[in-house]
Amino acid sequence: MLTTRLDLARIRAARRDIDPIFLDTPLYQCDALGRELGCTVSIKLETANPVRSFKARGTELVATRLTGQGRAAAVCASAGNLGQALGWSGHRRGLAVTVVATRRAPAAKLDRIRALGAELELVDGDFEAARERAAGIARQRGIRLVEDSLDIETCEGAATIGLELAAAGSSFDTVLIALGGGALATGIGYVLKTLSPGVEVICVQPLGAPAMTRSWHERRVVTTDSADTIADGVAGRFPIPAVLEDLLQVADDAVLVHEASIVAGMRLLLKHTGLVVEPSAALGIAAVLEDPGRFAGRHLVTIICGNNVDLDAYRRWVHP
Amino acid sequence: MLTTRLDLARIRAARRDIDPIFLDTPLYQCDALGRELGCTVSIKLETANPVRSFKARGTELVATRLTGQGRAAAVCASAGNLGQALGWSGHRRGLAVTVVATRRAPAAKLDRIRALGAELELVDGDFEAARERAAGIARQRGIRLVEDSLDIETCEGAATIGLELAAAGSSFDTVLIALGGGALATGIGYVLKTLSPGVEVICVQPLGAPAMTRSWHERRVVTTDSADTIADGVAGRFPIPAVLEDLLQVADDAVLVHEASIVAGMRLLLKHTGLVVEPSAALGIAAVLEDPGRFAGRHLVTIICGNNVDLDAYRRWVHP
Repeated sequence: MLTTRLDLARIRAARRDIDPIFLDTPLYQCDALGRELGCTVSIKLETANPVRSFKARGTELVATRLTGQGRAAAVCASAGNLGQALGWSGHRRGLAVTVVATRRAPAAKLDRIRALGAELELVDGDFEAARERAAGIARQRGIRLVEDSLDIETCEGAATIGLELAAAGSSFDTVLIALGGGALATGIGYVLKTLSPGVEVICVQPLGAPAMTRSWHERRVVTTDSADTIADGVAGRFPIPAVLEDLLQVADDAVLVHEASIVAGMRLLLKHTGLVVEPSAALGIAAVLEDPGRFAGRHLVTIICGNNVDLDAYRRWVHP
Repeated sequence: MLTTRLDLARIRAARRDIDPIFLDTPLYQCDALGRELGCTVSIKLETANPVRSFKARGTELVATRLTGQGRAAAVCASAGNLGQALGWSGHRRGLAVTVVATRRAPAAKLDRIRALGAELELVDGDFEAARERAAGIARQRGIRLVEDSLDIETCEGAATIGLELAAAGSSFDTVLIALGGGALATGIGYVLKTLSPGVEVICVQPLGAPAMTRSWHERRVVTTDSADTIADGVAGRFPIPAVLEDLLQVADDAVLVHEASIVAGMRLLLKHTGLVVEPSAALGIAAVLEDPGRFAGRHLVTIICGNNVDLDAYRRWVHP
């Protein structure tokens, strides 16, 4: 019996509060990619929506509940995708949204946050600096601080992907999930361990930002002094204890991959699916490239979690 | 009252014979693209499936009916996408599929046809040469010739996209459809004219392959001596009379666009949606770029009909 913060009935109910445009996303087998990797690969595509990532599943819940409570504003720190998603969900409901991001965030993500009508504040330093500043704004203004992975709505939103995977009833035996703060991994992992316990749940993080993976292996919070990866969406340094507790129960493994493998994964996804993805979305394929023997002959699902990427940077990485 | 070859009850029934993986595809608004074009743009995405185009909606019907009749083989001419789709649908049902294509077809499409287990025969010349050869093979072997746009299943399959658009009940007022043989345009057009008659149906074809558009404007079959466009998927020269008859009833307009606009459309789709598309899929955006005043302030849906593209050619076009 799992004793996480997640609850299946709440996750099922969450679907009602999420705009259908973010639900029931494509899940399809890509034979050409599978042939190249020596296994069967299915893609769960979370980018064909107005915010181009899975994050709106969570922000739809946050925004629905805030408006239900009569609240008028919210603030979040974001590497880019959460900010866009909260901007979108807030805008639809008349919520004033402030997003704090680091100046290092991809320009494409920052532009889109502004375009959604959110107030954007930039800070020096990395994601953790943005997190501090967002917390300060929430205190000053007395508004809700939306914290990715800590706030249960962000995990429940991600968990609705797990419901769709479990309902597909297909024969996959492994799911590969990008690991950052942990909302995506704990959400999907919880649902699969509850409804499809035979499916192996593997989290993948860059070697350059390994805090949560190290924490999972050591079964205690391990922080790092810096994060250095092109996968900006998963570059946290301070794992949240409650999220780690959940992850310890629902993940079967957590692996680290090299930057070169992430780029190779992006290249393969472009070649075999025509999808330009952000680095975080290629972590699953990177894991297969680094350990093909482990995955040989298996049926994997990899979550294409976002495609908000600066095209100039993408070209530098993928077509050197 | 429309008197086309299409029938709403048959189209609704067709959904049952199509693998669900090809149905209920994403339909979502892309604000950044709309801002750049001065209108509202929604995307109907037909590439997130195992054959990367809408064509399997039709070949699923063909293959289901052939197996129901106890037939064991089929042949088609294809610019690439129909061949892949028939290969996929046939393979799932134990049908032997032969595909005739021109040597000029994108290598990526030819490779994927072979990989699906279909027999691939290459001919010199253009698509019309492939069509002749496929007809010859059908006669010699006594097997079913699958003719895109002429065979009603290919139109009915495409028409299921129209059902999904009509059911979405959103506020779009115009749909832009790539025009080649006419299955996509007559299928979607018929359903919209029946269920959502207020929606304007605009077909878009390259100036370099204008046979069907000219035929529509002159209300009689007009053939051309050659076809010269990067949009290989719509490069026919001999419109089929029965398809033209249907198109005359369901299309509000048919427009021609320059190659440079197709490339500009591909570039905008990459920038604002992260989708690498084949040229045919950019025809709708190309039409808006050529006549922005006509579409200003409107809500358009454009069908992203396929993304089987040679990446080397794509890079040459899009990042010169």
